[in-house]
Amino acid sequence: MKIQRAERTRVGLVQMRCGGSPKENLSKAIAGIREAARRGAEIVCLPELFLTPYFCQSEDYRWFRAAEPVPGPTTTALAAEARRRKIVLVASLFEKRTRGIYHNTAALLDADGRLLGKFRKMHIPDDPLYYEKFYFTPGDLGFRAWPTRRGAIGVLVCWDQWYPEAARLTALLGAELIFYPTAIGWHPAEKGKVGAAQHDAWELIQRSHAVANGCFVAAVNRVGLERPAGGDGIEFWGQSFLADPSGRVLARASASKEEVLVAEVDYAKVEEARTHWPFLRDRRIDAYGGLTQRFLDGVGEAGSLSRRGAR
Amino acid sequence: MKIQRAERTRVGLVQMRCGGSPKENLSKAIAGIREAARRGAEIVCLPELFLTPYFCQSEDYRWFRAAEPVPGPTTTALAAEARRRKIVLVASLFEKRTRGIYHNTAALLDADGRLLGKFRKMHIPDDPLYYEKFYFTPGDLGFRAWPTRRGAIGVLVCWDQWYPEAARLTALLGAELIFYPTAIGWHPAEKGKVGAAQHDAWELIQRSHAVANGCFVAAVNRVGLERPAGGDGIEFWGQSFLADPSGRVLARASASKEEVLVAEVDYAKVEEARTHWPFLRDRRIDAYGGLTQRFLDGVGEAGSLSRRGAR
Repeated sequence: MKIQRAERTRVGLVQMRCGGSPKENLSKAIAGIREAARRGAEIVCLPELFLTPYFCQSEDYRWFRAAEPVPGPTTTALAAEARRRKIVLVASLFEKRTRGIYHNTAALLDADGRLLGKFRKMHIPDDPLYYEKFYFTPGDLGFRAWPTRRGAIGVLVCWDQWYPEAARLTALLGAELIFYPTAIGWHPAEKGKVGAAQHDAWELIQRSHAVANGCFVAAVNRVGLERPAGGDGIEFWGQSFLADPSGRVLARASASKEEVLVAEVDYAKVEEARTHWPFLRDRRIDAYGGLTQRFLDGVGEAGSLSRRGAR
Repeated sequence: MKIQRAERTRVGLVQMRCGGSPKENLSKAIAGIREAARRGAEIVCLPELFLTPYFCQSEDYRWFRAAEPVPGPTTTALAAEARRRKIVLVASLFEKRTRGIYHNTAALLDADGRLLGKFRKMHIPDDPLYYEKFYFTPGDLGFRAWPTRRGAIGVLVCWDQWYPEAARLTALLGAELIFYPTAIGWHPAEKGKVGAAQHDAWELIQRSHAVANGCFVAAVNRVGLERPAGGDGIEFWGQSFLADPSGRVLARASASKEEVLVAEVDYAKVEEARTHWPFLRDRRIDAYGGLTQRFLDGVGEAGSLSRRGAR
């Protein structure tokens, strides 16, 4: 099969609230997909785990019942949309792999409805109200990129976005457009003091992946306050965006509203960025071995930092 | 020797014009160091290759005569300042290692004047007016970090700043504050069209290293128009800055003036950032092996991108 690689495409980022009913969330997601397609989007991405509230706010065994196989009922429903609208779809799902093994998984459906593959979230957070290590086994499929009918696409999920290693490996696999389905927000009590800085850092790190790798980056977040475990909950900060290979934000959704953001991707910009700022040419692959270490405490003079007992 | 690790220190970034006389440039640098020290700086960093104009605008054998050994006359002169003012100094020099081997080297002097070590620029650019591959052999000392009397410091140089791998390895070696002596500017003919985007990307990528690694980052650039090879020259864009571990710019110099920027570093912010956003905890070191490859064209489905002849 000959891959049709358009030089330009349009992405649709479905920023949505996710309520208590998976059925209603799926309907809303499909409505968003259809709106995006009507407005010319050829690749559509949904937020992280869009079928449910962000249940990782507590450790509750009941939520495992919300998981499903991938492929499974949701990918089947979405594949019909992908085929009918001739669009590529990125869908983040709670995958039940077998009894006792669950993943935070993104499925990639090509524009003919075929399941191209899946990415299982590699970096799993565990912080107050983001108790993901309880639910998700870390991904074991490695980093991924796929040739789709709308370009070479990679997918990473939320916490992965803080890791330059993840974006780099995805780009080295060929991705020219990286999607980040996301569920990130403010702790309401902290928002006033550190909310702006937290959001800035989040947008910044993802834009930096675009710069470092000369690729497009799209982040798709949910929006609105959710309190599935009571308490103050999380106020998801929306602000889904698309950045070009120079790190410029081409389009950004609001912080408080559901919104289907549609924006153009011109793959010629990848060629241009990588030609004019040829970072990939000069990587010192002979000197990067230490990246597979947790910390280099035993190496060189810096090792003496801890040995000398500073602090 | 017991290392004295202050929890707070002040950095001084000497943003300067670099003229045709190495002697005058050194005098100006020392004046900047003294001003920084007077204003409370305990670590001072000079711009990349501050002793000369940015000679890499052309490939001219005569410039090799400007190189010197490290340690050598300039580190000796600066060591006296470091010792007298009790400050740590980062000095970027054109190092002659032997006949035919030259490096773009940063020397690190501790507050007692001792040469703690040196970093040789690892990533060497070669682009119009930045013909560095002609002059500089890529560094072979690897990435470095040192325990100084003013904290754990790493140094990288200019083009290294575009590489998340370099910042990560420097942080894994223990650095809590990374300096980037730099010589970057606009091609005057391009400035109007892409100047703002270029500067944005430059600041962004370095701030992202602060976020990814939970450390401070300081970039020290030269300023002003230089035309050592005639032509339009390069307009160095100044805007030296210090960013905290959340990526926030704490202080930024102007785009057009010489300036000694002094700003505070509170190492407790490193502890705070790495505790609250514990990215280092969750790195997937089992899955990063591909980072030592140039490109992963043969791997997985993405490999089929090129095999299927797209474009």
